[in-house]
Amino acid sequence: MARTRYVVAVDVGGTDMKAALVSGTPTAATVVTSRRRATPRGEDGTATAHAVVGAIVDLVDELRGVVDHPVDAVGVVVPGVVDEEEGIGVFSANLGWRDFPFRLLLAERTGLPVSFGHDVRAGGLAEHRLGNARGLTDVVIMPIGTGIAAALMIGGRLHVHGGELGHVDVGHGEPCGCGQRGCVETVASSAAIARRYSARAGKQVNRASVVADLVRAGDPDAVAVWHDAVDALAKGILIAATLLGPEAVVLGGGLALAGDLLIEPLRKRLAELIVFQRQPELLLAALGDEAGCLGAALMAIDAVEA
Amino acid sequence: MARTRYVVAVDVGGTDMKAALVSGTPTAATVVTSRRRATPRGEDGTATAHAVVGAIVDLVDELRGVVDHPVDAVGVVVPGVVDEEEGIGVFSANLGWRDFPFRLLLAERTGLPVSFGHDVRAGGLAEHRLGNARGLTDVVIMPIGTGIAAALMIGGRLHVHGGELGHVDVGHGEPCGCGQRGCVETVASSAAIARRYSARAGKQVNRASVVADLVRAGDPDAVAVWHDAVDALAKGILIAATLLGPEAVVLGGGLALAGDLLIEPLRKRLAELIVFQRQPELLLAALGDEAGCLGAALMAIDAVEA
Repeated sequence: MARTRYVVAVDVGGTDMKAALVSGTPTAATVVTSRRRATPRGEDGTATAHAVVGAIVDLVDELRGVVDHPVDAVGVVVPGVVDEEEGIGVFSANLGWRDFPFRLLLAERTGLPVSFGHDVRAGGLAEHRLGNARGLTDVVIMPIGTGIAAALMIGGRLHVHGGELGHVDVGHGEPCGCGQRGCVETVASSAAIARRYSARAGKQVNRASVVADLVRAGDPDAVAVWHDAVDALAKGILIAATLLGPEAVVLGGGLALAGDLLIEPLRKRLAELIVFQRQPELLLAALGDEAGCLGAALMAIDAVEA
Repeated sequence: MARTRYVVAVDVGGTDMKAALVSGTPTAATVVTSRRRATPRGEDGTATAHAVVGAIVDLVDELRGVVDHPVDAVGVVVPGVVDEEEGIGVFSANLGWRDFPFRLLLAERTGLPVSFGHDVRAGGLAEHRLGNARGLTDVVIMPIGTGIAAALMIGGRLHVHGGELGHVDVGHGEPCGCGQRGCVETVASSAAIARRYSARAGKQVNRASVVADLVRAGDPDAVAVWHDAVDALAKGILIAATLLGPEAVVLGGGLALAGDLLIEPLRKRLAELIVFQRQPELLLAALGDEAGCLGAALMAIDAVEA
């Protein structure tokens, strides 16, 4: 049996950095204590990346002092395009960096082994090892937050490319920030739901959870916006079912907190769309917004064990 | 080094059955001699499946007598939905069977170990081991014939579900035989190109290769139909690039025989569509319509080696 390791895990988001001291093995992880900080910003992407490295180093220093046990490693995950092998943040639209050598700098400054990965893939790994994707061989784990992406578990292994299920064209025609049209994310992300409701109802709403409450109250604008989101998600999942035939799709991120309000109409719409495809079970994620951080911890523990 | 095996391989198509006596190892295979027969049809799907089994048994008997060396195994691949583990033809729209136990019956009647698989996946395996997908880790192998499907090589392993890249909605709106609308296959398969040209030009053409010749001659109807096919294929490949990020897409089947006439406009259209996705290299398949049969042989050789 693997011995218990102590690692510091950091999930760098567009708004917040979530950090945790985690004790565990490759198949069990417990958060000892956690911290949350605003993600620092610099004048440009490179300055932001340097500021993020500094903030991570501070968090590691703070968290490694919490227990009377040495920390074995650090796991860090970031959004955007990531080269996990080389430990490089290749590109982040939101945070602006390009080809930044995170792992190298973090290893130098912490003096610890550093694992560096992709936030969505790490969250998928955690959901597969510890959450509601456990035991599944082919599963799409799809967090829905400010944006939408997916971790693809294929044949029991996490696929390291693609996963941009938020950016397939499902035909609604609205332009997306990515430069394409019709992207799932443009009408179905939490941010899109809040933005589209605000535009349609003529009153500013900042959170999809507010729109969800309005749907429950029968607000017709909220119902229409929610309906569009469900339709786009169902069509995106249909594409994944056609191409990959997964056993299940696990919905996570902030929007999944809507629970049945999301998953029941989605199940119904998907059943209408499915023709010959293997119908994936729709599940809610178990780990909430801790998934990325737990995944970062698991990656660090894996690397120590390897 | 693996010793050389002799196997009989059969690729059951909607029109023809291709059979070959193949000598080889898991990484090299040579066709000693091959045969082609019309695929027999019965009154219903089950009768067709029984007739196909009978025809395979005859082909095995004939081919095993060709060389003075015992045949080690039989490899058979069929279209449609296939349960490779159980050796069952789950469903074929074209040939009509449902849940037919091919492997069991073939093993009983030939007295040989039988491998049973999916035609497109087997062709992808062959193209990966012996053809133009060699050395690639993440690659989509996409034969374009009467229909369109894809073998997905992900992390160096063949994915066993999905692959129905011919049946993703790319927005042209035409109804597909599968029950959906906008499928790639509906405008881009060889059959669709011949059918759509015939309808548009008001003269019957039965082969996409005739339309290709008309494109070369500048026939405007042929050019329009070809353009639609290229556009749909590019949008289908874009979806695969978004979701899977493959290094390359290998185009096979009858339509790929058009060579540059297909691949050059397709490359151009895909480059226009790509925004942030990893741009896959477009390659032509090396094995032509032998790919399925060679893949069936490799599956049989693998099983003997295992």
